[in-house]
Amino acid sequence: MLQIDDVLAAAGRLEGVAHRTPVLTSRTLDEALGASVFLKAENFQRMGAFKFRGGYNAVNSLTEAERARGVVAFSSGNHAQAVALAARLHGCRATIVMPTDAPALKLAATRGYGAEVVLYDRYKEDRAAIATRLVQEQGAHLIPPFDDLRVMAGQGTAALELLQDTGPLDALIVCAGGGGLLSGCAVAAKHLAPGIRVYGAEPERGDDMRQSLRAGRIVSIDVPRTICDGQQTQAVGRHTFEVIQALVSDVLTVPDPVVVEAMRFAFERMKVVLEPSGACALAALMHHRDQFRGQRVGLTLSGGNIGADRFVALLSGAERVD
Amino acid sequence: MLQIDDVLAAAGRLEGVAHRTPVLTSRTLDEALGASVFLKAENFQRMGAFKFRGGYNAVNSLTEAERARGVVAFSSGNHAQAVALAARLHGCRATIVMPTDAPALKLAATRGYGAEVVLYDRYKEDRAAIATRLVQEQGAHLIPPFDDLRVMAGQGTAALELLQDTGPLDALIVCAGGGGLLSGCAVAAKHLAPGIRVYGAEPERGDDMRQSLRAGRIVSIDVPRTICDGQQTQAVGRHTFEVIQALVSDVLTVPDPVVVEAMRFAFERMKVVLEPSGACALAALMHHRDQFRGQRVGLTLSGGNIGADRFVALLSGAERVD
Repeated sequence: MLQIDDVLAAAGRLEGVAHRTPVLTSRTLDEALGASVFLKAENFQRMGAFKFRGGYNAVNSLTEAERARGVVAFSSGNHAQAVALAARLHGCRATIVMPTDAPALKLAATRGYGAEVVLYDRYKEDRAAIATRLVQEQGAHLIPPFDDLRVMAGQGTAALELLQDTGPLDALIVCAGGGGLLSGCAVAAKHLAPGIRVYGAEPERGDDMRQSLRAGRIVSIDVPRTICDGQQTQAVGRHTFEVIQALVSDVLTVPDPVVVEAMRFAFERMKVVLEPSGACALAALMHHRDQFRGQRVGLTLSGGNIGADRFVALLSGAERVD
Repeated sequence: MLQIDDVLAAAGRLEGVAHRTPVLTSRTLDEALGASVFLKAENFQRMGAFKFRGGYNAVNSLTEAERARGVVAFSSGNHAQAVALAARLHGCRATIVMPTDAPALKLAATRGYGAEVVLYDRYKEDRAAIATRLVQEQGAHLIPPFDDLRVMAGQGTAALELLQDTGPLDALIVCAGGGGLLSGCAVAAKHLAPGIRVYGAEPERGDDMRQSLRAGRIVSIDVPRTICDGQQTQAVGRHTFEVIQALVSDVLTVPDPVVVEAMRFAFERMKVVLEPSGACALAALMHHRDQFRGQRVGLTLSGGNIGADRFVALLSGAERVD
C-alpha cells in the first residue's frame, strides 16, 4: 500500500520543478458556507492540472536506462499532457495514445510538448492493446493514469503542500476519478493531521467510487454521462481503492448543474478558471454545506484546462447540463 | 506633484489590509512574445481590482473627525465598491452616487459593503452636482476616482510591490483611464528602477491620454465607445497629467478585439479572469510586441470584475466587438 515516505520522496523530486501552487481563500465563500475554506489551486499547476505531479514523479522514478527507451501513456485528457511534458523535461521520448476525436486543443498541447501522438478510433480499437503493443515494440515504459504507486505518490504532494500551508484541518475534499489524487492526498493528509476526515467528490452520474466504497469491493459502471470529463472513469484502481478503503470517510456526489454553479462562482468571485472536473470538490462542498458548517475545510481545485468556447457553451446553456 | 514618499506612506497604511497580490508569469506568453513578462494580478485584489488601494488610502488619510462625517463618491464601477469597502473597514458612512442603469451586480456589491446608494438618471441629472450637494448637506468628504494625491499614492503601491518582487525591469505597461494607477505606478517604478520606461495602455477609441501627452495639454473627448468600461473617461486629471507628462514615455493604444484576445489568452493559458479594462495592458503588449522583444516587461492586470454572462457575450460574439 502507498506509504507517506513515497509521497515525501515525490515532494523531493518535484521541488523546483512543479509549481508550489497557492492556497486561495474567499471571504464571500466562507460567509456563504459558514466555514473556513482553503482551496489548493492546481489549475495554476504546470500544464494546468495536478496531473503533472504524478506524471513527473513516475518518469523521474525510472532508471536512466528505462527512460532511454521512452514512455507510453493513453489518455485523451490531462494525463496525456502531463506525461508529454514530464518526458520533455527528462529529454526522453513519449508516445501518447489518443482518440481521433480528442479535442484539437489537447492534441495540439500534447504535440506541443514534443510527444508523438498515436491516434485510434475509440469505437473500433482498444487503446490498452495499442499501448501494450508500443511497450513491447519499443521496450518503452507505460505510465498509467492513476493506478500506480509513483503516480499516486506524486498527486499526494498537493495535499502535503496544502496542509503545510494551512495547519490542521477538520476535513479535506478531493476531486476523484480513478482515485490517484484522492489516495495520494489521503495518505499525506492523515500523516500531517491524523484526525482529519478525507472525502472524495464525484459527479452524481459517475458514482462508481461511492458504490465501491459502500459495497466494499470495486464496482464498475458504464462510461458515465457527465460534463466532468476528467471523471468519466468506469472503475477505481486496485492500488487506489486499497488506500481509499483504509483512509477515506465517504464520497460526496454532485449533480452537474451544481458543478456549473461552482465554475461560475470561481469565475465571478475568485477570478479563477476551473474545468468541470476541477470544480467538483468545490461543488461538493457547496452541495453538502450543512455537513461542514463551522469547520476548517481544505479542497482541491484540480484543473483549469477548458477552452473559452466550451466554458461559454456550458454557462450559456448552449450545451445542455442536467 | 505626487512624491515617492506619498506612495511609501500609502504602502504602510495598506500593509495587512490590501492583498499583496501575486506576480504571475507564463512560459507560453514569454515564448509567444520573445520577452520576459511579469503580470501584477490586481484582479485578485480585495473587491476584485486595484481601486481598493487608492480608496482605502484616501479614507485612511482622513482625520477621525472627518471620517465621522462620512465619505461620498460617484462611480458606476470599481471605485464605488472600493470606497464602500474602505468605509466599512473604517466603520464610517459611505454614500455612493450611481446611475440607475448601473449593472445589478455592482449595485448589489456596493450595497453589500454597507454603503448607501443614491441613484440618478445619467441622461437627465449631473452626478457631480448631486455629490456636491451631499457633501454640503452631510459635511461628508468626497473621494474622487483618480485626480487626488491620496488615491494616486494608493494605486502606486501596485508597482512598488511588483518591482520589489521582480527587481529591475526594462519597461512597465499600466492600464490607463483617468491616470490614477498610471501616475502612481510611474512614481513608484522610477524610484525603484530609474532607467525603466513607463507606458500607459488605452483603448484605441478612447485615446484621450495619448492625445493629451502628444499635445502637451489635457485634451477632452466624447464618451468613447469601447468594451473597456473602466476606461471611458473623457479626460485625464490635472494631478495625474502632471506626473504622466514628467514620467511616462508613451501611451499604447489597443483595438477592442485585441482586448478580447487578451482576455481569452488569460482565461485559457493562465486560468485567470480579467475584465476588459483589466486586460488592456496585456493586450497592448501583445499588439505592440515588436517594441518589447528581448526585454523584461512588467504590466498590470488591473481588475477581474466581469459577470460570467458578459464574458460569454463578449467571447461568443453575441456582443459585437469592433
